[in-house]
Amino acid sequence: MRIYDVIAKKRDAKELTEEEIKFFIDGYVKGNIADYQMSALLMAIYLNGMSYKETAILTNCMAHSGEMIDLSSINGIKVDKHSTGGVGDKTTLIISPIVAACGVPVAKMSGRGLGHTGGTIDKMESIPGMKIAIEKERFFEIVKEVGLSVVGQSGNLVPADKKIYALRDVTATVESIPLIASSIMSKKIAAGSDRILLDIKVGSGAFMKTKEDAIELGKTMVAIGEKVGRETVAIITDMDRPLGKAIGNSLEISEVCEVLKGRGPEDLRQICIELSANMLYLANKGTLDECRSMAIKVLDNGEAFEKLKAMVLAQGGDVSVLEDNSKFAKAKIKGELISEKDGYIYSIDTEKCGISAMVMGAGREKKDSIIDYSAGIVFNKTIGEYVNKGDVIAYLYCSDEEKLKQGKKILSDSIKINDIAPNIVPLIQARITKDKIEKF
Amino acid sequence: MRIYDVIAKKRDAKELTEEEIKFFIDGYVKGNIADYQMSALLMAIYLNGMSYKETAILTNCMAHSGEMIDLSSINGIKVDKHSTGGVGDKTTLIISPIVAACGVPVAKMSGRGLGHTGGTIDKMESIPGMKIAIEKERFFEIVKEVGLSVVGQSGNLVPADKKIYALRDVTATVESIPLIASSIMSKKIAAGSDRILLDIKVGSGAFMKTKEDAIELGKTMVAIGEKVGRETVAIITDMDRPLGKAIGNSLEISEVCEVLKGRGPEDLRQICIELSANMLYLANKGTLDECRSMAIKVLDNGEAFEKLKAMVLAQGGDVSVLEDNSKFAKAKIKGELISEKDGYIYSIDTEKCGISAMVMGAGREKKDSIIDYSAGIVFNKTIGEYVNKGDVIAYLYCSDEEKLKQGKKILSDSIKINDIAPNIVPLIQARITKDKIEKF
Repeated sequence: MRIYDVIAKKRDAKELTEEEIKFFIDGYVKGNIADYQMSALLMAIYLNGMSYKETAILTNCMAHSGEMIDLSSINGIKVDKHSTGGVGDKTTLIISPIVAACGVPVAKMSGRGLGHTGGTIDKMESIPGMKIAIEKERFFEIVKEVGLSVVGQSGNLVPADKKIYALRDVTATVESIPLIASSIMSKKIAAGSDRILLDIKVGSGAFMKTKEDAIELGKTMVAIGEKVGRETVAIITDMDRPLGKAIGNSLEISEVCEVLKGRGPEDLRQICIELSANMLYLANKGTLDECRSMAIKVLDNGEAFEKLKAMVLAQGGDVSVLEDNSKFAKAKIKGELISEKDGYIYSIDTEKCGISAMVMGAGREKKDSIIDYSAGIVFNKTIGEYVNKGDVIAYLYCSDEEKLKQGKKILSDSIKINDIAPNIVPLIQARITKDKIEKF
Repeated sequence: MRIYDVIAKKRDAKELTEEEIKFFIDGYVKGNIADYQMSALLMAIYLNGMSYKETAILTNCMAHSGEMIDLSSINGIKVDKHSTGGVGDKTTLIISPIVAACGVPVAKMSGRGLGHTGGTIDKMESIPGMKIAIEKERFFEIVKEVGLSVVGQSGNLVPADKKIYALRDVTATVESIPLIASSIMSKKIAAGSDRILLDIKVGSGAFMKTKEDAIELGKTMVAIGEKVGRETVAIITDMDRPLGKAIGNSLEISEVCEVLKGRGPEDLRQICIELSANMLYLANKGTLDECRSMAIKVLDNGEAFEKLKAMVLAQGGDVSVLEDNSKFAKAKIKGELISEKDGYIYSIDTEKCGISAMVMGAGREKKDSIIDYSAGIVFNKTIGEYVNKGDVIAYLYCSDEEKLKQGKKILSDSIKINDIAPNIVPLIQARITKDKIEKF
């Protein structure tokens, strides 16, 4: 087989065989296929697409390009959750304890943030003493003892994705549904869970800008899950507003604790109940309605919060900051974004909010940027609320005057105030299972 | 400007600006743009195309990426001819003397052959003593003294094309009309002639397999010529049969001499008159009919042959082999391809004929293969002719028994004999000028 012929076949919009897909993935990982050939093939895939069958084969080949985690020593159906990345998205740290409190083990590997979106691992590291680099044996032990563990990605998981993603990133071939779907699903499959829940964000702060694209991505990933024997459900959620009120690492952990204490912002609570219910549903815990009730119960009776604390303790973290969030290290300066006019908060450019927080130190501009865990934004008013001139829209936390100024300017630009109230879309936009697509 | 954005723009089928095209050509030649980015862009161009405007800009940027030959010291309108490459195509060495004999200077750089198509420079080198590596000053002198000179390509002409072509060759992006057109035209523009005649071959032995594709390529190149101020005419000619009867270097030189002596195969004579007439027309020598008459006159009165001999003499070649072709070195073995049945020669796979000749030593399988100038094929019967069982279809010339056997097998496979006579298409299929397309 020659890579030239594989490129030519996809260029001519023909369906690639399993043998051909395996050939180019293996060859690329081994270095037998040059970057310039792979990038030509990726552009052909971008422009001519891939069938669900091809995408599933691609995903499987990528998943098997490196280490495959075996979670079979942990009893029960393991369900993983993946979010396509948002601003202020701290759901992993809420729903994992909820699901664990309902008796479903959670053995989760999570990532760091880059650019305007934060990473769960960075948020966890804002808890003093918290360890995220944990040996596999200890990781499994914690899951067995506590019911959940969230750790940083380690080992040689899906090297094909690392190499291909780096190439896509510089050749304008990122925004391709088969390539996005195979990238996400290969990592979930290699990470070992039996079932997969996907939270696909849609809107200004997300990768998918339209509901149609988000649904197509969801359908593709559910189809891949079906074909590789890992049942998958996709939930499409709105990212035209930041999730919750807090953006920034320890600020978000505080908000996580609020929700787990049965309080916190309503939108965040709602989405966490919905995602938890779907994970429980995938773990065969009952109907979706029954699963919702179970999630609400463990949220409101404090059992989910206890699970978070138990995990933090097991991973060496200081539990006292969870019980009393005022113990977190504080930013040197607290700024205020004041409304300059009366009106409704009509829109919030979520990506800009993320950039504002990043600029103030909450995120990484480059891979080696150092994070200020105390930096970030807490909204005082949210989308659809009426503000008067002089009202505080948001508080900004930063330890550098100049960066605060920059962050404030970007945040200010992100918010549009209007005489008329905005039409607010539902937070949960659609749900895709192997059997049906429900749009809300 | 970022190459990422240029790739993304072409990926989204938008028209690139002059600034963007200049940026990626200059950046690629200088090594600032990686091969893997260029190949993604080439695939996007392959799949989304380029407007005539973009293609003309691309051509101009490529032409200016290296040395530009200045022919202004030679008086008169200089007309260059380019053939897209065929089997048995020795027209350059017939029409250049014709045109020069009619008073139009020809300063031509030509290439070597690779694979199944021969190169003019290789054919010239079969003449003992013939020099093709000639300094620019001497090249110009010969043109001024004799009226024509055909030399090998030298200098750093169109480095962008060399680099891009090598990449296209391994990324399945060769067969793209804007990329083919810009590759050919950039070289013609850098080579310095004022007007350009294109001989676009169509058929089994050619790059363009259909008349439609050949016409589209011709239209594109004529449009480029128009936009860059080098008037261009394209002639589409049939390559579903070898041109003339001879394939192989000194065998083709002998055939060149036959035509220049007013004899030779009718198809070859006809195409040479037509191409010469178009070159003379481009040089403002009169109407096409008047130009045809001029070409026929210098062919039949021997003036064109005298021009060839004068050029050969000026370039150090042995003129006696032209006057008496039997003086050429001969192949050790002369084989015969005998018809195994009665019938019409229905089709000849031209590419296979070229491969047959190459295998016997007439061409290069690899860049560094050594050519046997005496090797090749001379057809005794041609397409449409009736043969009886036992008739000689072709003579094969080779100096190695084993290679002769291989060549004979391939040649035999290339010829189909049928009870019914084939429908023979006209040798000249179409003519494209800036004003009109004539189909024949």
